[in-house]
This record gives sequence, C-alpha cells and structure tokens, in this order.
Amino acid sequence: MPFIYHQKVRFRHCDPAGIVFYPRYFEMMNDTVEDFFEKVVLLPFSGMHQDCGVPTAGIEAQFQAPTRLGDQLEIGLTITRLGRSSLGFAYDARCGGEQRFTATSTVVFIDSGGRPAAWPGTPRARLEEHMKKETSHGA
Amino acid sequence: MPFIYHQKVRFRHCDPAGIVFYPRYFEMMNDTVEDFFEKVVLLPFSGMHQDCGVPTAGIEAQFQAPTRLGDQLEIGLTITRLGRSSLGFAYDARCGGEQRFTATSTVVFIDSGGRPAAWPGTPRARLEEHMKKETSHGA
Amino acid sequence: MPFIYHQKVRFRHCDPAGIVFYPRYFEMMNDTVEDFFEKVVLLPFSGMHQDCGVPTAGIEAQFQAPTRLGDQLEIGLTITRLGRSSLGFAYDARCGGEQRFTATSTVVFIDSGGRPAAWPGTPRARLEEHMKKETSHGA
Amino acid sequence: MPFIYHQKVRFRHCDPAGIVFYPRYFEMMNDTVEDFFEKVVLLPFSGMHQDCGVPTAGIEAQFQAPTRLGDQLEIGLTITRLGRSSLGFAYDARCGGEQRFTATSTVVFIDSGGRPAAWPGTPRARLEEHMKKETSHGA
Repeated sequence: MPFIYHQKVRFRHCDPAGIVFYPRYFEMMNDTVEDFFEKVVLLPFSGMHQDCGVPTAGIEAQFQAPTRLGDQLEIGLTITRLGRSSLGFAYDARCGGEQRFTATSTVVFIDSGGRPAAWPGTPRARLEEHMKKETSHGA
Repeated sequence: MPFIYHQKVRFRHCDPAGIVFYPRYFEMMNDTVEDFFEKVVLLPFSGMHQDCGVPTAGIEAQFQAPTRLGDQLEIGLTITRLGRSSLGFAYDARCGGEQRFTATSTVVFIDSGGRPAAWPGTPRARLEEHMKKETSHGA
Repeated sequence: MPFIYHQKVRFRHCDPAGIVFYPRYFEMMNDTVEDFFEKVVLLPFSGMHQDCGVPTAGIEAQFQAPTRLGDQLEIGLTITRLGRSSLGFAYDARCGGEQRFTATSTVVFIDSGGRPAAWPGTPRARLEEHMKKETSHGA
Repeated sequence: MPFIYHQKVRFRHCDPAGIVFYPRYFEMMNDTVEDFFEKVVLLPFSGMHQDCGVPTAGIEAQFQAPTRLGDQLEIGLTITRLGRSSLGFAYDARCGGEQRFTATSTVVFIDSGGRPAAWPGTPRARLEEHMKKETSHGA
C-alpha cells in the first residue's frame, strides 16, 4: 500500500488557464516526501538540515489530465529502490479515481559536507520495513 | 545555438540549505519557454490563453550540482523534436561553465477546447526556421 | 471566536535563514480566506471566478517572531468590518501560544466586469450571522 | 530619484483571474530590496546570511489596479527613514504610468544571533548618501 498524501487544489496553485501550474505539482511532491520522512522514516526535515539532507538528484513527471481549483488530489508514494545512499520514489496522483500525474524521483542521503553517505542504520531499517509492508499489501 | 535565458539566483529561490529549491528550477524552465515563445515563435503567452495554449505534458530533470544565492544561471534551450502538435525541448543550465541541471520536456499545442491541435502555419514555420539555425550553428 | 486555519510550516515555506520567507505568509493568509469563503460564506473560490471575485484591495502585516520549519501555525481570522462591497479581516497567527504575525486586509466583491458590487443577499446574511457568533463568543 | 526595479509579469505570477496573485507582488518587492542591497548598499544577501540579516518586520500594500500577464512593471523604491537598526521603504509600482500598487515596509538589521543591531558604519554611510541623492533629485 502506498503512502498517501492529500492535497486540495488551492487558488495559489492555479494559473491563468484555471488549472494547476505544473511547478506547483513539484512542491506537492516535495510535501509528500517531507511527510513520508517525518511519519515513516521518523527523520523529519526540521531536524535534518544541520547534519544531513536528502536532496533530489532527479525527477520526471507525466501530466495525464489537468487539475482544477477545488479538486482533491490523492498522491500515492511508493519506494522503487533503496540503494546505499539513494532512494527511488514513484508517485501516482489521482482525483476521484482519475489519474492526473505520475512521477518518479531519486533522493540521495548526504552528510554535513554535502557528500553522498550511506543511510544510517535506523532510517534504513524503517525504509526496509516500509518496503515489506508495501509489497505484502500489494502496492 | 541554443536560446539562452539568464536567471540570477534570488533569495526567494533558496531553501533552508541555502541552495535552489528544485521546484523553483521548474519555474525558471517555464520562464525560459515563455520567453522562447515570445521572442522566437512570436506567440506570447499573454495573447494565447483565450484561444489556445501550450501546456507541458511531461518533464524530467537531473540536478548535477547545487546552485546558490547570487549565482548567475545561463539556461540553454534547444528543440529536440517538432511533432504535429507537440514540441520537445532540452535544457542545459550552467553557472560559470559548470553544469547545474539538465532537463527535457514536451509541450503540446491545444485549441480553445483543450484538445491537442496541429501547430498553426506561422508558428510552425518559425519553429522550423529556428531548428535550422540551431543545427547550422552547431548547437 | 475566530475562524481558525491550521498550517504546518513546510520546507517550501522557508528561506536560507531557516525561517518562513514572508511572502509565504501571504499565501497562508490567502488559504485562510479561501477556506473561510468555502466553509463559512459557502461561496467557494472554485465556483466564483467566472461571474465574480473577491480580490484583495489592501493588506498589512507585522511579523513579531520568526517561524521555523515544522512549526504548527494557528491562524485566527476575524471580520473587522462588512461594507456594501468590502470586507475587512484581521489575522492573528500563533504557534504554541506565541504570536508570530498579525495582519489586516480588505477584500472587495466584484462582478464579472471587475467592478465593485454589493455583496449578494445570501453571502451577506452568512457574513452577518458569522459576525454575531464572533461577538457572542468573545472573539 | 527612486531606485528602480523592472519586473515583467510572467505566467507564474498570475492567478485564475489572469492577474497577478498578490503574494507574488511581495516576492517582487523582496527582489527589489535584494537588488537595492546589492547595488546601492553593496551588502548582497548572498554574503549576508552567515553573520547578519535584514528581515522584514512589517509591510503594507494597497493594490490600486490589476496587473496582467506581459505587463512591464516599474517598481520605484525610496527610503522613508533610517533608524539605528531599522530602515523604512516606500514602493510605487507602475505600468505605462498607471499606478498598480504602493507599499511601505520596515526591515531591521540583525546580528548573527538574530538580535537587532546598529547598521555598521559603511552600509549606513551608503544609505545616508543614497538618501541625499533621492532628495536632491526630487524623488
């Protein structure tokens, strides 16, 4: 089962065409990852940016259908790959069952010097545990 | 030769780690495409959103190195493919010669009903002319 | 009792000093007003922007103390004045009891031509009813 | 003569009503102050956020007329008051002579501990020199 982030589409997300301006989708994806790190990995961004970080190394998205002001988006996040210092995500955003965008990204764990570093034991264990749950529930 | 967009990295682009928050890069890429349509295709966004549009269908980016407050980014835009109603772009963003991010995207020409439509003759001719210049100058 | 909007401070709100970048506060205030119109006035922005609108005519804010990543903001909104076509708001944003910012703004009801117009009867009645509740509960 | 900042209104600034979303005006005002500190005070934000800062303590704005995609804004900035650690600004934003918004703000010089501190001698001298020029040219 994917980690779910709920985002109502707000006035500030929308462009002159009345639909979500696509850079705002990336802010929503970042919010999703931020919540995932706080709630699943128990490594909140607020405690992180002195000693380490998880910058995004790459991201790609496909926008299948426009999203309008007031729409309720459900963004599903799943782990696609856990590397020594990297972590792959897949996103599937829907509104009332209709797919609006899909995406994948890779984040990298870095140390205080900004260099890629191995995931520490506890966060890695939580990520592995979460991946097992994802699989066993058929995500 | 690519179309060049200059963007100074500003306070509003930067995150608590002191580097550009990656969704802001997508705003910069949108600014680049906006200028390209105004200056090269002579189809400014300001005259467009009643009758037609050029929404982004997909985009991917790789972030090679962080960009800091005050950095001068030079974003090069080239056309990778001109379809019946689509247009592919490649982006190469550098600061003082160092690559900061690369990206590709696809935009689609749509009519007032939001359906993909063939590029009108004049914009298509300008895109084709620009592609010839890109090749002849070795971009 | 004021209308309350809850906003967790996210990575995308914060600047290189690690605190909320003040233009993001205005986005939060807009979200607060957006929710107020949907939940109290029953006039959601999503149904509004064809025939009418409620643009902000003026706004001022004082930032008493910085707000950091992870902070839980509680933004209280009260009505200060209901005019023929205007509406005055006061905001009081706190985190754990500490005041972070206060603000006031004026929005104006406009018709499809963008001209100030009298609040229609039903929204006006709801605004008046809400003002009574505010007073009777001691806001 | 005021310090002038030029800002073309871009797609990313505009809301579903096709006009500038007012929180974006505050980003433009921040850009204006950022340029003023770099070019007039010779104290660029990029060199500042380790040891000191100039957070905004309060700001108010009146929006006289809407601004549309493609408009060329000219934002004039003048100093209204130089205190021991504070600095008052006035903004006057116009497009083709028509006033779009006016604003005032106060920023405060703070030290590395986040406490208000006296403006150092060199920046203060430059601010005073700039104020003389403003007056002598009749701004």
